[in-house]
Amino acid sequence: MKIAIINGPNLNLLGIRETKIYGTESFEDFFEKLIKKFPMTSITYFQNNVEGVLINELQKKAMECDAIIFNPGGYTHTSVALGDTVAAIQCPVLEVHLSNINGREDFRKISHISAQCKGTISGMGLKGYELAVYYIIHMMS
Amino acid sequence: MKIAIINGPNLNLLGIRETKIYGTESFEDFFEKLIKKFPMTSITYFQNNVEGVLINELQKKAMECDAIIFNPGGYTHTSVALGDTVAAIQCPVLEVHLSNINGREDFRKISHISAQCKGTISGMGLKGYELAVYYIIHMMS
Amino acid sequence: MKIAIINGPNLNLLGIRETKIYGTESFEDFFEKLIKKFPMTSITYFQNNVEGVLINELQKKAMECDAIIFNPGGYTHTSVALGDTVAAIQCPVLEVHLSNINGREDFRKISHISAQCKGTISGMGLKGYELAVYYIIHMMS
Amino acid sequence: MKIAIINGPNLNLLGIRETKIYGTESFEDFFEKLIKKFPMTSITYFQNNVEGVLINELQKKAMECDAIIFNPGGYTHTSVALGDTVAAIQCPVLEVHLSNINGREDFRKISHISAQCKGTISGMGLKGYELAVYYIIHMMS
Amino acid sequence: MKIAIINGPNLNLLGIRETKIYGTESFEDFFEKLIKKFPMTSITYFQNNVEGVLINELQKKAMECDAIIFNPGGYTHTSVALGDTVAAIQCPVLEVHLSNINGREDFRKISHISAQCKGTISGMGLKGYELAVYYIIHMMS
Amino acid sequence: MKIAIINGPNLNLLGIRETKIYGTESFEDFFEKLIKKFPMTSITYFQNNVEGVLINELQKKAMECDAIIFNPGGYTHTSVALGDTVAAIQCPVLEVHLSNINGREDFRKISHISAQCKGTISGMGLKGYELAVYYIIHMMS
Amino acid sequence: MKIAIINGPNLNLLGIRETKIYGTESFEDFFEKLIKKFPMTSITYFQNNVEGVLINELQKKAMECDAIIFNPGGYTHTSVALGDTVAAIQCPVLEVHLSNINGREDFRKISHISAQCKGTISGMGLKGYELAVYYIIHMMS
Amino acid sequence: MKIAIINGPNLNLLGIRETKIYGTESFEDFFEKLIKKFPMTSITYFQNNVEGVLINELQKKAMECDAIIFNPGGYTHTSVALGDTVAAIQCPVLEVHLSNINGREDFRKISHISAQCKGTISGMGLKGYELAVYYIIHMMS
Amino acid sequence: MKIAIINGPNLNLLGIRETKIYGTESFEDFFEKLIKKFPMTSITYFQNNVEGVLINELQKKAMECDAIIFNPGGYTHTSVALGDTVAAIQCPVLEVHLSNINGREDFRKISHISAQCKGTISGMGLKGYELAVYYIIHMMS
Amino acid sequence: MKIAIINGPNLNLLGIRETKIYGTESFEDFFEKLIKKFPMTSITYFQNNVEGVLINELQKKAMECDAIIFNPGGYTHTSVALGDTVAAIQCPVLEVHLSNINGREDFRKISHISAQCKGTISGMGLKGYELAVYYIIHMMS
Amino acid sequence: MKIAIINGPNLNLLGIRETKIYGTESFEDFFEKLIKKFPMTSITYFQNNVEGVLINELQKKAMECDAIIFNPGGYTHTSVALGDTVAAIQCPVLEVHLSNINGREDFRKISHISAQCKGTISGMGLKGYELAVYYIIHMMS
Amino acid sequence: MKIAIINGPNLNLLGIRETKIYGTESFEDFFEKLIKKFPMTSITYFQNNVEGVLINELQKKAMECDAIIFNPGGYTHTSVALGDTVAAIQCPVLEVHLSNINGREDFRKISHISAQCKGTISGMGLKGYELAVYYIIHMMS
Repeated sequence: MKIAIINGPNLNLLGIRETKIYGTESFEDFFEKLIKKFPMTSITYFQNNVEGVLINELQKKAMECDAIIFNPGGYTHTSVALGDTVAAIQCPVLEVHLSNINGREDFRKISHISAQCKGTISGMGLKGYELAVYYIIHMMS
Repeated sequence: MKIAIINGPNLNLLGIRETKIYGTESFEDFFEKLIKKFPMTSITYFQNNVEGVLINELQKKAMECDAIIFNPGGYTHTSVALGDTVAAIQCPVLEVHLSNINGREDFRKISHISAQCKGTISGMGLKGYELAVYYIIHMMS
Repeated sequence: MKIAIINGPNLNLLGIRETKIYGTESFEDFFEKLIKKFPMTSITYFQNNVEGVLINELQKKAMECDAIIFNPGGYTHTSVALGDTVAAIQCPVLEVHLSNINGREDFRKISHISAQCKGTISGMGLKGYELAVYYIIHMMS
Repeated sequence: MKIAIINGPNLNLLGIRETKIYGTESFEDFFEKLIKKFPMTSITYFQNNVEGVLINELQKKAMECDAIIFNPGGYTHTSVALGDTVAAIQCPVLEVHLSNINGREDFRKISHISAQCKGTISGMGLKGYELAVYYIIHMMS
Repeated sequence: MKIAIINGPNLNLLGIRETKIYGTESFEDFFEKLIKKFPMTSITYFQNNVEGVLINELQKKAMECDAIIFNPGGYTHTSVALGDTVAAIQCPVLEVHLSNINGREDFRKISHISAQCKGTISGMGLKGYELAVYYIIHMMS
Repeated sequence: MKIAIINGPNLNLLGIRETKIYGTESFEDFFEKLIKKFPMTSITYFQNNVEGVLINELQKKAMECDAIIFNPGGYTHTSVALGDTVAAIQCPVLEVHLSNINGREDFRKISHISAQCKGTISGMGLKGYELAVYYIIHMMS
Repeated sequence: MKIAIINGPNLNLLGIRETKIYGTESFEDFFEKLIKKFPMTSITYFQNNVEGVLINELQKKAMECDAIIFNPGGYTHTSVALGDTVAAIQCPVLEVHLSNINGREDFRKISHISAQCKGTISGMGLKGYELAVYYIIHMMS
Repeated sequence: MKIAIINGPNLNLLGIRETKIYGTESFEDFFEKLIKKFPMTSITYFQNNVEGVLINELQKKAMECDAIIFNPGGYTHTSVALGDTVAAIQCPVLEVHLSNINGREDFRKISHISAQCKGTISGMGLKGYELAVYYIIHMMS
Repeated sequence: MKIAIINGPNLNLLGIRETKIYGTESFEDFFEKLIKKFPMTSITYFQNNVEGVLINELQKKAMECDAIIFNPGGYTHTSVALGDTVAAIQCPVLEVHLSNINGREDFRKISHISAQCKGTISGMGLKGYELAVYYIIHMMS
Repeated sequence: MKIAIINGPNLNLLGIRETKIYGTESFEDFFEKLIKKFPMTSITYFQNNVEGVLINELQKKAMECDAIIFNPGGYTHTSVALGDTVAAIQCPVLEVHLSNINGREDFRKISHISAQCKGTISGMGLKGYELAVYYIIHMMS
Repeated sequence: MKIAIINGPNLNLLGIRETKIYGTESFEDFFEKLIKKFPMTSITYFQNNVEGVLINELQKKAMECDAIIFNPGGYTHTSVALGDTVAAIQCPVLEVHLSNINGREDFRKISHISAQCKGTISGMGLKGYELAVYYIIHMMS
Repeated sequence: MKIAIINGPNLNLLGIRETKIYGTESFEDFFEKLIKKFPMTSITYFQNNVEGVLINELQKKAMECDAIIFNPGGYTHTSVALGDTVAAIQCPVLEVHLSNINGREDFRKISHISAQCKGTISGMGLKGYELAVYYIIHMMS
């Protein structure tokens, strides 16, 4: 089984910025632990700040993987193009958000991505990714 | 560890109505299997169509449990009072929705509950409940 | 043929409050005359002020009746949950309003129920119920 | 007793267009049956696609009839002028819509006509007209 | 000097409907008095309930007259096409409204015509027309 | 003189939840002191989390009391039905809110209840109830 | 007969600023000619940039005059208090605007004053004042 | 103890205008009775129609008094500057409105002042001021 | 092959009004050249200012032609009825606009027609019609 | 004559995704046929998913070409920056959309690009590109 | 060179109120230092809480100065009249705000003044005034 | 001291496009002069049209510089992701806009960046950058 994790803008700052909220763990550190927990599964990780590069990666990974875990970051609320990509590809996409975006600014309540995803997990921090992997391996039909 | 599942309006029709979408499994059948999967955990289940009775139950279970899994159904979009309850109680509440509510009518994009919850899982059908239980037992800090 | 009339909040005050507008006839008095006019039909009547109790009743009567006549009162404009119920049950529901709700406050122009009903009759007072019964018996296919 | 039925734009296509939804019966065919069912009542029928011609007809029929049954079609949502006409004439006007307009596009939820009418019947197809005639003859005070 | 008065929908009912508000004088009676007050001026009068016929008349009178006095009635709030006509013709157009449209329903606060007119007189009843004629003859440059 | 205090959803948590904001006094404790301050007046107290049960109580107490003091809690912003009840009953209703609802979330700025009440007191905590009682006894005409 | 003209903010700049649009005539010059045209009428003129001073003047002149001609300038669109004043005084108020405010920015389409006035004249420049005086003397009943 | 009452625009017309609604009592008459009822308290009264003069007075009285009772009249709905003043001064401000502003026009539902006040009393006429004084003396902490 | 061109309100003024923008060529002159360019095709032309007459023509031409080229002019933004007609007829309709309507006033951004058409060509002046004819003959399937 | 075709996000999936709607022809296949049809014209083709790379390409091609055919895909509705680019360059830009974007979701009705283009062709699939080329070669002035 | 600084409502409280945010320096203290830094320039300072008095001052200083530095305070968001004044005067006006108004309440995002100013400096505290003076002396053309 | 200037989309066209408005000076020419004026300060310059590349650059320069001067161009109004970046980095960011964005289209009044910046300078053309540098060197604390 092959799973791709794709992270959007500013998620490369995890562990560096606002560490009181998000903790001091970088995504790279978390990712290392994650792949150890699921040794039978091939999990890849990709992060980029460019909207169109994320489109490219989604299109590419959709051909290679059984499922994609996608955190579109700030593009969640503004990118019709990313929503179109998720709608166009046939590979199931799970949306993950670190924080509960409903409890933040009004403009974060609009999502162009969620409606196209198989499901959404939000508010559970980095553990949301682990939960998504667990779901894909053990429960997704 | 004690977990309470609380379901809101019309979820008692699961397995009876719109079976093509939601399947023919009732929540009761699903619940039996669920508790077998987590034998070490005490899980209770409560469903009611009355908004205020759900408030009562949330208040009561918050005193007794380690976490609540809550599917507010149609009250998600209209109940300020239920949102106030989740905000007032100290027990962590996980919100679960069977379907992806962002992909439906506009009035379903407003949520008075989500912002008060620890996290939200949506779009994964009944498996969303199992995922929530798994998260509470193995990952919630 | 079995028909259920279900009335929502404050309709128990009919004949008592605002008698200049609604007349001095209570729904009970009207109901007695109604069932005399249609002796071959079994018509039941239920009123409650609690949203969730109306959901319960709609679910129950949908199993027993050929059609439901439903006046959701003030819940018309606020209850997504009642709209979900009408959408979920298979029994046809006719919506009746005593007054012409389009000619009143702006918030009464939103209806979460109408779109799910087979049809709507509004503005004709208590006679709207009689018209609905007549339609169900003689015209509904 | 004299009743005028006035139909607005595109209702002349009934029975020709979208026959799966509206059936293959034209309004003319339906009208013939209708007048046979109410032999003691003088019922006239008028259809026009021009907004102002409908205004003319409403003004004229208001002088001659006991009641008007009016289906404003697409003008329902855009015509302040037709709403003004219905408000100005003293003859009672019943609004009829074939389909349930609350279950369609957002712009169809605005009505400039309903608030001025004695009542509205919607969602019952051609039978809505019959119901309106029945109401006028037997119940209207 | 030639002036054309063009009246929109339902203004033919003046003196007949709602006489408590608008008085018992028809526009025809008022018009007779008006032309007597300004014997040196050629004033014509035209009323029609059809939007497009009003467009035709505006186009035609714009070729023949020094100024047009236009009461678009209910089309004020809905007709982009009439606004386009007033913008296209070179003859100055004065807009007159019998009542103060700002003190009525919200949808009457939108005007597609006013922005294209030389000026607007509202709230002064039939005397608004006289004022407009007086302005055209004695003050317009 | 008879006064009824009716409290809406989550007000039973007073003194337990968020004690830094609302203090550690429960409404029951406050109520005991209140009735001692006004020994000549019959004051009753009722709390419920169910919208429809509050409608029932308002209807019932309106028959028995000289005035009602009503804190609709979270239903303030969502309940057309409760607003209809206050409008229908003839007993004067004073609305009380513990906090200043204008200083909170946007959705709390909408009130379906206030417009139907005799007056509103907000932002003064539990003392708002005492003020309301004082007003009813000494000043209300 | 006594008429008061009251001008709001920035109208003291007339003839000085934007002379291409408004001409080089100051209001003082215009006013001198105006009173000569109507020698039998007492006309006074007052201008101020302070909202509250305009309220004071409206209250005062309402006691002394038969009618007030009021150009609220930029306060038209923002002053609820001035609208309240016009509603409170019994003296008829005619609103005059130099330019056609419907043809300008969106925020100028809101008027808190118009609905309270007897009538409005806009888009006719300084001649709008003369027209208003003429109307008051010869036509107002 | 020192209390300042500050009244905004048009409140000087009390007892003169719209006496059917507001009674024939002027604020001055009411004020005389008020200070007699609370002989141990120093109460001052100030009214002005100018927004900025009210800002001045609020700033000044905040230095001298224990509490301010403020009725901002029509400025309630439009004055960000007055809201800023109330937020800046440290003296507690109680907002009083004669009528129930929620039961009036839509633009009166916006308040720039309420959120900054300690509390609001509305709908109780002149007695609202008395209630506010009573609250400050006997209950405010 | 038969093609019908139907033009809406004010398009009869082409070549007369605003010649700097639209040129001095009338539609009649353009039409003559157009039919010469496509001698093998039967092209008819119809213009009317009346909304309902355009509905009539669309209904009629839909029976006779292979495709309709429709410029609804100002009715584009206001006519639900014309949109219903285009939706009801089975003949393909191409929408043409002389100017780029997205670059004009906000109310021109709403279209009730476009969604029902096979395609839209805008901003290319009279050549848009030629392009539409070319498309119908050579490319439409 | 030199023409550049620039395609935005996800258009590289043409012929692969949603083939029932868009057909099985890739843009590359279509492009080969297109250049054969117009052998005298130099046509280039560029596709990219990155918004800023499209800005770069528009700026570059504007220097080299006589016209640009641009399908901004999902960026149509969200990119102010692309609209600024089209406004800044002097080369004429024709906007092409495969589907009729007015007949889709609400957020697709906003366009930041259209207003800056010479013209728009939408709803005609790949043939819209051919039509645009034809227009540029034979009709554009 | 002559520069006028004009400050709007509540800015006289600087150094007194909310000293943690704005510091303990009053504008008068700051102003003394400012004029010392620019000894060759005549800088005047004026503060007032009255909207109309600010209009008066802007009109007056526009005649005497080379540039005006204007902080409209709370009137920024509500005063069309002040915006009209800045538009009418020919003297360049620089807008200064102490705090970043985009980072505060929604109603502070509307500005009636900014669009009429030569430029805006916000978020830099009292130093924004110094920057504005520096710009006027050294850079403004 | 190290300062980074980062420019967003289309600012590479400065001096080439719309030279009447923005002048014929390119940013490169301006930048050369700028660094000469501040010889003691290290100032770097970066421009890119890609949103994500700007995110990368902001993240990178935040590590190396004392302050960033950022002109987000068209991304100002659409990029939540860039706003998140500015919020996440600890280096102070000054926002500069060449033109007064409040005086342009409505969609330019929304800014996702301003609220996160230390301050904003707009409307002063290229001199805004110089002013920002001056502020950072001489005034920023």
